[in-house]
Amino acid sequence: MIAFVTANEGKFREVSAKLLDAGVRIVREDRTYPEIQTDRLEKVVRFAATVLDDQVRGDYLIDDSGLFLDALGGFPGVYSAYVYKRLGCAGILTLLDGVSDRGAAFQTVLLLRRGGDHEVFHGETRGTIADRERGAGGFGFDPIFVPEGASKTFAEMSLSEKNAISHRARAVDALVAHLRGPKEP
Amino acid sequence: MIAFVTANEGKFREVSAKLLDAGVRIVREDRTYPEIQTDRLEKVVRFAATVLDDQVRGDYLIDDSGLFLDALGGFPGVYSAYVYKRLGCAGILTLLDGVSDRGAAFQTVLLLRRGGDHEVFHGETRGTIADRERGAGGFGFDPIFVPEGASKTFAEMSLSEKNAISHRARAVDALVAHLRGPKEP
Repeated sequence: MIAFVTANEGKFREVSAKLLDAGVRIVREDRTYPEIQTDRLEKVVRFAATVLDDQVRGDYLIDDSGLFLDALGGFPGVYSAYVYKRLGCAGILTLLDGVSDRGAAFQTVLLLRRGGDHEVFHGETRGTIADRERGAGGFGFDPIFVPEGASKTFAEMSLSEKNAISHRARAVDALVAHLRGPKEP
Repeated sequence: MIAFVTANEGKFREVSAKLLDAGVRIVREDRTYPEIQTDRLEKVVRFAATVLDDQVRGDYLIDDSGLFLDALGGFPGVYSAYVYKRLGCAGILTLLDGVSDRGAAFQTVLLLRRGGDHEVFHGETRGTIADRERGAGGFGFDPIFVPEGASKTFAEMSLSEKNAISHRARAVDALVAHLRGPKEP
């Protein structure tokens, strides 16, 4: 059994549903851990793992995700949770007011500790920032993110719609492929 | 001799000048260390010290500082260096466009490791955010911060003017008082 260490219920909902589809069951461990200030999600999870390795028994999974805006040099990126708490979606819309480049990417990095090893899995979904908040699903910046090829924001999608194309779901796909091991020839 | 561990030349310039006035000489150690994501400057330096204690020989000093905007729940606060790099002063002015509450505080926390002990010193300067950038001195958000009782921004002041009233200088004052020990009766 893998423990998903996260204080974010939305992340657990998405990851557990996606993994259940693949026949993998996880449990939630609701706790926080130190996250360092860095430009890269992968550094956050790798540093956190050095701390969690001493504190969590057995296999565990952690998720660090962020919204990276092209016009703002990747802001808020690794600090998305903090920026969401302080500025909300409204703050991002204010910063992009009158800015023509509304390109953005949501990224997730998952780290799995299994049997003493660390494996990292990446997922990305590109899209654009909407002109206003739309929808009540998902969490965080979902109401302003329209993934490429879609017209709805993440917050206007059902869990299964979001899980078909999201950055987090893509990272979970990579994790599942790893858990299944190399394909038979 | 105390080593001031910082990658920020502006911080070294201000602290070393202020300490020299008090007869304390420091050297600069130009390196970075892990900074955790948290709402409090003191937590950043205390966590960093647990790492630096294993890496730096002898006495050392570290500085974590931030600009806390009243109208934005303390944003950018502990993340000021990152937000400055990504959004600049212009980003803060955009976020405050049309906002009547322009109150803000600059804060510094210094941590001194001396003889195995950690001592922490706080400094704060309250002020307001200017309508536009003014001045070329200082660093970071100095061009938009007007300290209480002044009409110039920090960036329009000389080093000695800023060092008479700044958050960092006030933290250094507390450090100097500590180094001098209790006053004679």
